Amino acid sequence: MQHLREELDALNSRLLEMSGLVEESIARSVHAVVHRDEEAAMDVFRHENRINKLEIEIDNIAIRLLALQQPVAVDLRFVTMSIKINNNLERMGDIAVNIAECAISLLRMPALKPRIDIPYMAKLAQDMIRNSIDAFVRKDPELARVVLKSDDAVDRLRDEMYAKIVSFMEEDPHRVHPGIDHLFVARGLERLADHATNIAEDVLFFVQGVDVRHHAELQSQISQI
Amino acid sequence: MQHLREELDALNSRLLEMSGLVEESIARSVHAVVHRDEEAAMDVFRHENRINKLEIEIDNIAIRLLALQQPVAVDLRFVTMSIKINNNLERMGDIAVNIAECAISLLRMPALKPRIDIPYMAKLAQDMIRNSIDAFVRKDPELARVVLKSDDAVDRLRDEMYAKIVSFMEEDPHRVHPGIDHLFVARGLERLADHATNIAEDVLFFVQGVDVRHHAELQSQISQI
Repeated sequence: MQHLREELDALNSRLLEMSGLVEESIARSVHAVVHRDEEAAMDVFRHENRINKLEIEIDNIAIRLLALQQPVAVDLRFVTMSIKINNNLERMGDIAVNIAECAISLLRMPALKPRIDIPYMAKLAQDMIRNSIDAFVRKDPELARVVLKSDDAVDRLRDEMYAKIVSFMEEDPHRVHPGIDHLFVARGLERLADHATNIAEDVLFFVQGVDVRHHAELQSQISQI
Repeated sequence: MQHLREELDALNSRLLEMSGLVEESIARSVHAVVHRDEEAAMDVFRHENRINKLEIEIDNIAIRLLALQQPVAVDLRFVTMSIKINNNLERMGDIAVNIAECAISLLRMPALKPRIDIPYMAKLAQDMIRNSIDAFVRKDPELARVVLKSDDAVDRLRDEMYAKIVSFMEEDPHRVHPGIDHLFVARGLERLADHATNIAEDVLFFVQGVDVRHHAELQSQISQI
């Protein structure tokens, strides 16, 4: 039992390290776009390798934990949830790489840009990510619901941004190329928010849904083993 | 043991149902874009609900299996892998929805389109998806490697397509809007290929990597329990 606690703590701390790295990558990728900072984009490419290694490490810890500790109930849900979140975080790292690639592409062009507030949209997405991970760590369904509500704000902002970027591009053919990169940055931020929403939905399902719909049944079955 | 086999078979058949649904959604979304077919796009929106329900159902089966059957070794890896693939498939269903939304957006505009071969790129992505799922079901590392190799072809095709779409858009401001939708369709197909690549990497890790790097150690630890 002591051993199980230690391994769960190890899994938890590795996941926090992973989400910290991914959050840093996202922050650096947005910085690279906004400040035309090549070094920031390079940081994101450097992070990618560590994130991919950490994903494998977390999967290993989870699978060993399942094999050797055979956790049940809330601990089992924590481990299966970790596998899903790990998968989402790795994809989020890839999106940061996509955004950093847009930053590099924009650096090679004159500094033409549409009037869109990338830092604000990035902040919304980053808050959603942090809250979805916190909701998981604290098993906090209220915080998970805050994330789900934020998704609408991100979608509205995306619609506004797209309209502005389209007008920007239609005014001058030279703006098509930089416009596309900004479009992909906005799309990347929206997808980051989608991943946070996915995590928050999973938190609700694992913390509440299973409790409400299946936990009683599951527990009674487990007690019969 | 009999019970374990049955539940593993149930998990397997649900996952195949899920991947079948996702593949159908992708095919319908591409059809909607290429043939300006609103009904096909509607099919994709209708599928989304079933896919989301199936995702929850598969997670439930997996978590019950872990709790009640406590599988080890290859069976345990199969279950944890199922959780990850399930997550990927749900995201792929979302991408099909994105592509169907582009189809609807394109329907509202005159039929202007760049000279890009969407059906061909879609075929590449669909083959990768089918092969990655088959590689998982058959535990076939060679087939997983075929998927990884295809990813380069998709990336090259994407670069070609982007260049064509940009030229198309630069020629006439009226082409900006339909150009963007085609850009997002191409991006969606590329992301589908990325998900297939992720699944194939996981298959290699679970079928071979764990065997090579950790399986011996894991087995010896399990035998000590």
